[in-house]
Amino acid sequence: MKAQSAALKLKLFEQVAQRIGEAVASGALPPGARLPSVRQMSDQEGVSVSTVLMAYMQLEAEGIIEARPQSGHYVRHAPRDICPEPQMSKPPQSAAPVSVGAAVAKIYEAARDPQIVPLGAAVASPELLPTRRLGRILAALARNEPEAGVSYDMPPGFLSLRQQIARRSFGWGCALSADELVTTCGASEAVQLSLRAVAKPGDTVAVESPAYYGTLQAIEALGLKALEIATHPRHGMELSALDAALKRHKVAAVLVVTNFSNPMGACMPEERKRELVSLLARRSIPLIEDDVYGDLHFGSARPKVAKAFDKQGTVLLCGSVSKTIAPGFRVGWIAPGRFRERVELLKFSSSMATPTFSQMAIAEFLRSGGFDRHLRMLRRHLLIQVGKMAAAVKQHFPEGTRATRPEGGSVLWVELPERVSALELQRRALQARIIIAPGPLFSASQRFENFIRLNCAQLWTPALESAVATVGRLAHQLA
Amino acid sequence: MKAQSAALKLKLFEQVAQRIGEAVASGALPPGARLPSVRQMSDQEGVSVSTVLMAYMQLEAEGIIEARPQSGHYVRHAPRDICPEPQMSKPPQSAAPVSVGAAVAKIYEAARDPQIVPLGAAVASPELLPTRRLGRILAALARNEPEAGVSYDMPPGFLSLRQQIARRSFGWGCALSADELVTTCGASEAVQLSLRAVAKPGDTVAVESPAYYGTLQAIEALGLKALEIATHPRHGMELSALDAALKRHKVAAVLVVTNFSNPMGACMPEERKRELVSLLARRSIPLIEDDVYGDLHFGSARPKVAKAFDKQGTVLLCGSVSKTIAPGFRVGWIAPGRFRERVELLKFSSSMATPTFSQMAIAEFLRSGGFDRHLRMLRRHLLIQVGKMAAAVKQHFPEGTRATRPEGGSVLWVELPERVSALELQRRALQARIIIAPGPLFSASQRFENFIRLNCAQLWTPALESAVATVGRLAHQLA
Repeated sequence: MKAQSAALKLKLFEQVAQRIGEAVASGALPPGARLPSVRQMSDQEGVSVSTVLMAYMQLEAEGIIEARPQSGHYVRHAPRDICPEPQMSKPPQSAAPVSVGAAVAKIYEAARDPQIVPLGAAVASPELLPTRRLGRILAALARNEPEAGVSYDMPPGFLSLRQQIARRSFGWGCALSADELVTTCGASEAVQLSLRAVAKPGDTVAVESPAYYGTLQAIEALGLKALEIATHPRHGMELSALDAALKRHKVAAVLVVTNFSNPMGACMPEERKRELVSLLARRSIPLIEDDVYGDLHFGSARPKVAKAFDKQGTVLLCGSVSKTIAPGFRVGWIAPGRFRERVELLKFSSSMATPTFSQMAIAEFLRSGGFDRHLRMLRRHLLIQVGKMAAAVKQHFPEGTRATRPEGGSVLWVELPERVSALELQRRALQARIIIAPGPLFSASQRFENFIRLNCAQLWTPALESAVATVGRLAHQLA
Repeated sequence: MKAQSAALKLKLFEQVAQRIGEAVASGALPPGARLPSVRQMSDQEGVSVSTVLMAYMQLEAEGIIEARPQSGHYVRHAPRDICPEPQMSKPPQSAAPVSVGAAVAKIYEAARDPQIVPLGAAVASPELLPTRRLGRILAALARNEPEAGVSYDMPPGFLSLRQQIARRSFGWGCALSADELVTTCGASEAVQLSLRAVAKPGDTVAVESPAYYGTLQAIEALGLKALEIATHPRHGMELSALDAALKRHKVAAVLVVTNFSNPMGACMPEERKRELVSLLARRSIPLIEDDVYGDLHFGSARPKVAKAFDKQGTVLLCGSVSKTIAPGFRVGWIAPGRFRERVELLKFSSSMATPTFSQMAIAEFLRSGGFDRHLRMLRRHLLIQVGKMAAAVKQHFPEGTRATRPEGGSVLWVELPERVSALELQRRALQARIIIAPGPLFSASQRFENFIRLNCAQLWTPALESAVATVGRLAHQLA
């Protein structure tokens, strides 16, 4: 009886596993999709919890799905057919002045040229943004409330916009009030103001390794030094490494992209965020948190921000709608905690005010609903595009290539065989009218010489796939 | 015959003088208006040049008109009924770190409150701006070209806008090309980027005395020091004082509002601009020129910019449409000369890009004509409002009050009797729901304790006049 029951169970879990496997193969469950919880699947399939658990373990062993701690089970990106992951970064232990500026210019310049395939800057296709609806909202405002729009909207910025952001902050694990927010010309300005509020020239700021080149550029432009901290490709900045660095260095601030970091796509687990905040609060070191990618989670839950654990007001949370709604509107914000007054003052001399109509339109967009529906569509696209990019890299790039497995965001971080110079690869790709972001941009110490970052936020087309194949071919030549 | 002819001449010039006097009295020739040139008047009236000259001399002696060197004759502001002018400033001879920030915040804060009479920030009534037309332009763009508007417009910024600005630069005495321009989030960002491009923390920047508080705030926020240079209320920065200061101090840059300075309203004569540029070029010191008020000349000719005399590319010219079209659009620009590359790089980490729709709308506004017509209307209003403000100050303020006689721009700089504390006056005025800008904000060394600046860019109404009367009454209490 017992044996028979076990045999029955075996049959059952194999059936469940097979059904899921087929859903993955057909694309009904795309790479990165979160499977129903064990309890949900048990209800859905009319089988016991343990049967589902066994099915999931079987699929995990086959490399079709993967378990993520405290998060659930996910379809692996193109199972068996993607590159292994890069390893934890090992930056030098000293702070360095930054000089990435000039090399970055090439990326921005290429972003202006519609003839160049945009695998460089992390810019989304307008088709993936709520372009028409936002245009209609702006047109109505421009017709009906021109007086409001032409006037200065002095810091802290447009009240209804701050109210909408505050409302959404519940979803980030915070409960910000409109009074705690200052609007900015995008997250770039928010990060710049944060850095200026807490650090003065010559100071050292600890950053992820690799770190977003825009941030490194801001650090460079402000005469600060960057201290790169070892960073895990999935879990983000390594706290033990940070702790050790803080013992050796006087650090004015720590800057982290906690959710779907750029370029690694790492998402710091909640427990680590809590630990990071308390580790820094104990030392009275401000944390600058850049959360521009937080809404672009592939899993079902929006990850919290570290700011959610901020009891002392030492976290400066920066965000924007540039990755989700409209980069050209230049609408971002900062929740500067105890640095609010200083940030507000700096904002005056940085750009006086945030554009009024932009703020009015984004506020109305958020107020009138549909943002969450839009985000679901956008995330589905990004998930698929990141998966396709990962598969294309596996197919076209040299043996030995590694790539991250981001759980959100819109970029893929690719480690090429050691011989391949990313800067040379960038040069050759540009000749083929393709722009990529070479690894050394993401490091104050010019590391990651054989890494590149690929933008996955463009609609996947045969032309795009062919561009990736071309980059792969060029990489082969250099390998 | 000769005697008779002289008698006739006498009669003639008196007739001409009387006719002009009547035109002034009736308001047909408002305060600040430029009279026809002697030659034009001679043709118009059918009298000889010398007759006109005598008429003008008569009117000058009566205090009805005034001659301005190399510029012509102008109707005096409310002749006989305005205050004497303040004298040349005498700043200390040492550079000082700046701390105006906190006091400035009060002005910006008040600017947000529609219940407060806005005599503080130099902000125009939306009724004086081309609000409806700009709204229609933006609405059409938002409907017809939403894809363009939501996308990033990377530095150097929107090409058609740069082309339009370049086209207008001919009127400033320059012949800039679109390639020489970088668009910015208003002139505030342009000045901030200029300062960062040419000076590093700890460096000294020479400024006018008094100087615009926003500029002092930027200097403070960037950790620079300000060296105040004696400034003439009509002719701007005193070049001999600057020359002497440059011999004593290492100066990283000189920052001047060459046309209708803020708060004095001084306009540097063309010859002095030329001299200023060559004086600095000889020493390889960059000149940051803030020309936000240049289009607001009360006389017939648009004054040139110092950049017009820049042969070595060491002048960084900053401008915007915030005083003439739409402050809330945040559209400014910089012609950074030889510092273009550095300014462009700094722009990326300052705010990444200038808002796209704002740039598109302003470009279309400039392209489609009507800007010059609008400027004529705006200047006429400002001229009248500055005149009315000067008359109201004369009428309501204590004996011994002095006031500038700006030939353009939109502010009046008022020197109160020495006993009057401008900061206390600001406090009491704010209790009466009126905001003014106290003198110490305009100085790194907190001078001008008994000065205030009055914004004249609001439509003149009985309520506004009554607010000025209230400020006068409060000043009487403090005198």
